[in-house]
Amino acid sequence: MDMFKINYKDKKTKARIGVINTKKGEIETPFFMPVATKTSVKHISSPDLEEIGVKAVISNTFILHLDPNEKIIKKLKGIGNFMNFKGINATDSGGFQMYSTSCYINSSDSGVLFRNPFNGEKIFITPEKDMEIQLDLGSEIAMCLDSMPLLSHSKEQIKMAVEKTGLWAEKCRKHHKKLQEGISQNKKQLLFGISQGGIYPDLRKESAKKLLKIGFDGYAIGGLALGETFEEEMKAIESHKSIIPENEIIYLMGAGEPVEILEAISRGVDMFDSRYPTQNARHGTILTSNGKLKLLNKKYESDKKPLDKNCSCFACKNHSRAYIRYLLKQKEGNGLRLASYHNLFYINNLINEAKNAIKKGKFLEFKNKVKKSYQQAKK
Amino acid sequence: MDMFKINYKDKKTKARIGVINTKKGEIETPFFMPVATKTSVKHISSPDLEEIGVKAVISNTFILHLDPNEKIIKKLKGIGNFMNFKGINATDSGGFQMYSTSCYINSSDSGVLFRNPFNGEKIFITPEKDMEIQLDLGSEIAMCLDSMPLLSHSKEQIKMAVEKTGLWAEKCRKHHKKLQEGISQNKKQLLFGISQGGIYPDLRKESAKKLLKIGFDGYAIGGLALGETFEEEMKAIESHKSIIPENEIIYLMGAGEPVEILEAISRGVDMFDSRYPTQNARHGTILTSNGKLKLLNKKYESDKKPLDKNCSCFACKNHSRAYIRYLLKQKEGNGLRLASYHNLFYINNLINEAKNAIKKGKFLEFKNKVKKSYQQAKK
Repeated sequence: MDMFKINYKDKKTKARIGVINTKKGEIETPFFMPVATKTSVKHISSPDLEEIGVKAVISNTFILHLDPNEKIIKKLKGIGNFMNFKGINATDSGGFQMYSTSCYINSSDSGVLFRNPFNGEKIFITPEKDMEIQLDLGSEIAMCLDSMPLLSHSKEQIKMAVEKTGLWAEKCRKHHKKLQEGISQNKKQLLFGISQGGIYPDLRKESAKKLLKIGFDGYAIGGLALGETFEEEMKAIESHKSIIPENEIIYLMGAGEPVEILEAISRGVDMFDSRYPTQNARHGTILTSNGKLKLLNKKYESDKKPLDKNCSCFACKNHSRAYIRYLLKQKEGNGLRLASYHNLFYINNLINEAKNAIKKGKFLEFKNKVKKSYQQAKK
Repeated sequence: MDMFKINYKDKKTKARIGVINTKKGEIETPFFMPVATKTSVKHISSPDLEEIGVKAVISNTFILHLDPNEKIIKKLKGIGNFMNFKGINATDSGGFQMYSTSCYINSSDSGVLFRNPFNGEKIFITPEKDMEIQLDLGSEIAMCLDSMPLLSHSKEQIKMAVEKTGLWAEKCRKHHKKLQEGISQNKKQLLFGISQGGIYPDLRKESAKKLLKIGFDGYAIGGLALGETFEEEMKAIESHKSIIPENEIIYLMGAGEPVEILEAISRGVDMFDSRYPTQNARHGTILTSNGKLKLLNKKYESDKKPLDKNCSCFACKNHSRAYIRYLLKQKEGNGLRLASYHNLFYINNLINEAKNAIKKGKFLEFKNKVKKSYQQAKK
């Protein structure tokens, strides 16, 4: 059985529908992974995720290493069993935490020196150690330890990050392979490489080439959705895609805006993850079939309508804008849950609709319709 | 149709099962009301409450007056519709907020001067105004504005509070009656009086006598569960009960410990409310068929068992102690919800079991069994 198989291809764009085979079963692409940093999407339970239709989540290796620790999760039969999630678990390496001032100390070719923010203890994470932790966590998809530059970094700094990322990717691949020797192919954890290079096409391509040379189960695009322009982001995706063959999995990390997702799908991206829907929900930005709705606006104070009249989610079936607005304003956990639930449902549904449109050869029209609703909402 | 009808009486204790008729329908006593101060039980949705089997909740008049304001809730067809709760809504007057240093300024015979903690604005709440707000909120059960003394107050101070409470009760009753003139009996909001008197039998009886003379739909016991001993609390209940006729509703305010509830039921109490189950859940104290469980204890770190092996609630069906412990430790909203859900389910189930025991003439045995499990857990 192929690890990745593309079943539908859009004629007018690079959008496609595929299936990834993991040790826990199949998952159809494209899909969006809500962020479950600490084995829980904020305010959302695993049965909630199932009800929403979420098929995969991503957690954070470094954060879980600090607490409860991978040994505890291993003892409880892996992250999926620990959180009782029926879907696919991905784990990010924690390279992202290199931008947390409370955790990061420095990094070298051999790894990253972190500080445990809870007790001040220093922790050196090598690419090899990161692979060991992710295997203990038991996720279906592991990510290489990468060195993520920020948008504000100079091209020289980004070039150095690309080189370090490539070096670490090699170490990750080698050690991950070794650790899984003897495990049958269909029981293996998948490992994805991550390209860096910021918005520079030459660096992005160099990074992708390096990954391709090493060979991974999937090819992620890192270091985007950090404040670059929409055009810069799309160009970086195209640079990455120009190197990676069509039959490989492409994962755009950190992207979760509706239009951003659809534009990336149209460029052949298969996977997404982002805090965007849940974080925005907590701050009162609601995603709807008519674009963004700023729920904390006073005009919704006594609005009896659901968040989105075209939505059939738990929050929309049961509650009014007025009620959820009041709870959010009061920072009530129940309000944070209802708004998060809705936004996750919206994104999940958006991708389902995108897939239907691809199957019907109507993806471009669908994408443009959604874009229009978001542009109108801005006015 | 009687407003309150007692259907079963225990032979060995004063425990009884009754039915209260409200404008929204019947509710069987005894029952426990989770605290939904701001129209939501913390971290628990209205559909969650239904699933748990919760038949009534209590919200706070003064807090809701500040935000979103009773006019908004009235526009949305009352508190039950606002929060989409199928059960009975009670509203406490806000007298309790006289002990919030951020709100309370002073009080006189005509009312309480509060400060709006959000904008500093002064708000004078008279007993009459309180009744108007509660009618706008549209709860099924309203509570008189009372003047609640603390355990630390002198007998002289408590006597003054009893007098003020009596005076306000008279004003509340009069105004509440006037406001509901012309409304048919089965559509009327019920109004309960509240006795004060701390742990002093003479003052408690004096307070109850005053209420009885005025005449209310139910007779609540206020100012307990504030740190007095168990014996003092039970004596105060008995003093109150000694004045109020057997066929009247008795409501013990602020009590939510399992043994406390059962002992109060055995003394003829019909209604309860408390933050106890939810607040304790958030701090890791789990109520179980084997007594209290301190979930944050390290020994539960990799415990695969549910919170309570004899529990069939959503949290126990889906998750392990290890998982909920980790989420609580990390203050994840999902963990706060799961633990709160379980503790509410426990209390609701405890009262259901108590009712079954009353019906079977086995209440005393049941109460003693539960007491034993809590005593053993303490060791």
